[in-house]
Amino acid sequence: MDVSRQIGLFMEPASIAVIGASKRTGDGSLSVLENLLRNKFKGNLYPINPEADSILGVKVFPSVMAVPGNIDLALITTPRHAVFESVKDCSRKGVKAIIIVAQGFADGHEDGKKLQADILETAKKSGARVLGPNTIGVYNAFHSLSTSFLGVKLEKIPIGIISQSGLFFPGHCEFIFAGKALDIGNGGDVNFADGLEYFENDPETKVILLHIEGMMDGRRFAEVAKRVAKKKTIIALKTGASTEGAKAIQSHTGSLVGDNRIYDAIFRQCGVIRAGNMEELYDLAKIFLFSSPMKGKRIAVLSMSGAGGVIATDACVKSNLEIASLSPETLEEIRKHFPPWVPIYNPIDLWTGFQISGYPYEELVQKMLNAVAEDQNVDAILLISGVLTNHSLWNPTAAIRQTINTYHKPIACWMYGPERKDVLSDFEEENIPAFPSCERAVNALSKLNLAWENR
Amino acid sequence: MDVSRQIGLFMEPASIAVIGASKRTGDGSLSVLENLLRNKFKGNLYPINPEADSILGVKVFPSVMAVPGNIDLALITTPRHAVFESVKDCSRKGVKAIIIVAQGFADGHEDGKKLQADILETAKKSGARVLGPNTIGVYNAFHSLSTSFLGVKLEKIPIGIISQSGLFFPGHCEFIFAGKALDIGNGGDVNFADGLEYFENDPETKVILLHIEGMMDGRRFAEVAKRVAKKKTIIALKTGASTEGAKAIQSHTGSLVGDNRIYDAIFRQCGVIRAGNMEELYDLAKIFLFSSPMKGKRIAVLSMSGAGGVIATDACVKSNLEIASLSPETLEEIRKHFPPWVPIYNPIDLWTGFQISGYPYEELVQKMLNAVAEDQNVDAILLISGVLTNHSLWNPTAAIRQTINTYHKPIACWMYGPERKDVLSDFEEENIPAFPSCERAVNALSKLNLAWENR
Repeated sequence: MDVSRQIGLFMEPASIAVIGASKRTGDGSLSVLENLLRNKFKGNLYPINPEADSILGVKVFPSVMAVPGNIDLALITTPRHAVFESVKDCSRKGVKAIIIVAQGFADGHEDGKKLQADILETAKKSGARVLGPNTIGVYNAFHSLSTSFLGVKLEKIPIGIISQSGLFFPGHCEFIFAGKALDIGNGGDVNFADGLEYFENDPETKVILLHIEGMMDGRRFAEVAKRVAKKKTIIALKTGASTEGAKAIQSHTGSLVGDNRIYDAIFRQCGVIRAGNMEELYDLAKIFLFSSPMKGKRIAVLSMSGAGGVIATDACVKSNLEIASLSPETLEEIRKHFPPWVPIYNPIDLWTGFQISGYPYEELVQKMLNAVAEDQNVDAILLISGVLTNHSLWNPTAAIRQTINTYHKPIACWMYGPERKDVLSDFEEENIPAFPSCERAVNALSKLNLAWENR
Repeated sequence: MDVSRQIGLFMEPASIAVIGASKRTGDGSLSVLENLLRNKFKGNLYPINPEADSILGVKVFPSVMAVPGNIDLALITTPRHAVFESVKDCSRKGVKAIIIVAQGFADGHEDGKKLQADILETAKKSGARVLGPNTIGVYNAFHSLSTSFLGVKLEKIPIGIISQSGLFFPGHCEFIFAGKALDIGNGGDVNFADGLEYFENDPETKVILLHIEGMMDGRRFAEVAKRVAKKKTIIALKTGASTEGAKAIQSHTGSLVGDNRIYDAIFRQCGVIRAGNMEELYDLAKIFLFSSPMKGKRIAVLSMSGAGGVIATDACVKSNLEIASLSPETLEEIRKHFPPWVPIYNPIDLWTGFQISGYPYEELVQKMLNAVAEDQNVDAILLISGVLTNHSLWNPTAAIRQTINTYHKPIACWMYGPERKDVLSDFEEENIPAFPSCERAVNALSKLNLAWENR
């Protein structure tokens, strides 16, 4: 079986055995079975618990061997001390995909490391692949599947994530939005390269995110990442980059960490974009998913606030982007809509134009966006806009969408103001990347351009 | 009249004339008068408009001279071309505090600069102080006063801000929370030093924020800032720090910018904390308002997520803080609540303790917070905590408050998860600083410590 089909058993199982399914359900119980049901998993569910006949109306089996049909995926949710026996049961049953949730293996003391090694050897002999230990498991919104103990929503977003922690599981933390996820935990068996091979030809995934603490087989990772990055954008957050952080990893996933500079070199060599923190991972996921390539560094800034234009200029300089020199024709076009006492140049301060022109705000934004998008000296646009009162009066969504459709240049937005939340939902629907600060919008654009330069 | 009393006329006027009060009111009209009424300004309001008898039930006067009583503050909201005449009217009436909202003065072409100089000279001759031009004006929640064209809420927060843009006006942008604000705009007359002198002895203000584009009189600023910083925390965001950004300032407020390194030197010399961007200004306002001094660099990290502990360690290293070496007694106390297969050290991974101890989450957090707060090797605590489902089960507010009250050490929190919003409102009520990312929480702690070291 090739890797992609092996991982497919985890991501698209037809049947799941939940070993150690708890009888406790309801608020605060963190029941995995309950959440599988809530998300309407469409395959067969076999809860295993010798002390129950049925949980939430689902027939319970006393053991793995007692399950009549085939088991694609075994989800072992027992306490640590019962894990090894459960893995042996799975081997006897011929299960080929096993998730081990419990902690206390390579992430623990020496005896835990040994226990993990023994378990993995047993699984390997039977031809099974193991995800974990120390994992939340898998998430696949396209298959109505989440093995989390939290009732996370399933959202069909064309982003896949491979992580080493539940912190990066969709729905656990607001920084992560993805339609598919694979938490490899300690990464004892299933690893980043396996996950990448699965996403490589997955038609539902366009952008791949990685949260890496460490890895065993850097060579295979580099080989696979280099190939996959030619087809899909890969963005990686490597944590434990400091010496002290590397130490902390020992008690989290027990991964081999390696020198931070080696990761830098591998990522660069493979065409993987590196994010510096979770906020940036989130920002880059958004801009790469939504934007056309950014073929140069010249930014036109449209700002409702003059102070915002100044802040944007600082941010562009810091992110190694340039404030575009607008052509005389563009400046002439813009000047028409402003009073004569306003000096016109990039960044463009929209406020006086709005106050004096008498246009509705969105109409002014449309004219200005098109004017700068038309300009051959502009590679991308930064729009800074406030949602001041009733958001219907200050909503530039339709104007931005029209300019993107016409000119295919990236537009990043910093939306601020008391009513911004209402506008942001429109942005999401229209796939327009909005950011919570100017610096984050500009940084995202700079990485979009970096990817183009390194292509 | 001393400076503080002069600025007091702007901040606590008994009467306001709104010159050029618009007859348009309601949604989208941006009526200053309407918003003054909505905020229930308690003094006398005199709208001035020769073409109206009454607006929103308030008697309108045809001119400033026609107003029977005294005018503490004149708010000139006329278009640019009518401003100079309005200032002359104010001088005749003997108004001593004038706000000029319009743009197109030092922020415009040469004729604008000259016009500003002429206006200021006229005002000065009559003994009036001028705020602006190019300003939103003033905000004072303790005096039911906001001169913004937006219906911002008044919140009695002991933070004062002096800015050069409406972007920094309370309620305009989510990064700014303050109980008092002074937008000096072009800063033609009333300047940062004046604002600082007002806040110096203002009992309602504990922390002072500055948004600086440039200034005319650096010497007086330094002199006043040095004195005030000994009494109250001053945090400054200097924008236009890059050469290109400095150029952009010319068309925003026309301020003299000066070299970025000079600002660095002045701030350091005066004991002013420098923020690098708006997010940081917001973060620092929060931590300095809520926290006791942080007398060392040693951080105890409590994290619901092992990955979060790794991320926190990286962040501490980057921000020049240290992961505290916990005392043997502390480690022993913590170990009691964890299974034997968990290696115990800082950062502490709360999850296994929660799962195995059987305590409610908040009780475990309380025990762990007190254990590390008790430790002489710990100067501050970082708590990383997810609000996973029903927030009542994952709300550490009371535990944190108890530990702060007992040990008086700073605690910064990174709260994540789907239900975090519900907990954050409790944090706000209890004056506990929570941050939207680990890096921002750690950076805020590092600046808290820096202020202590530079005291």
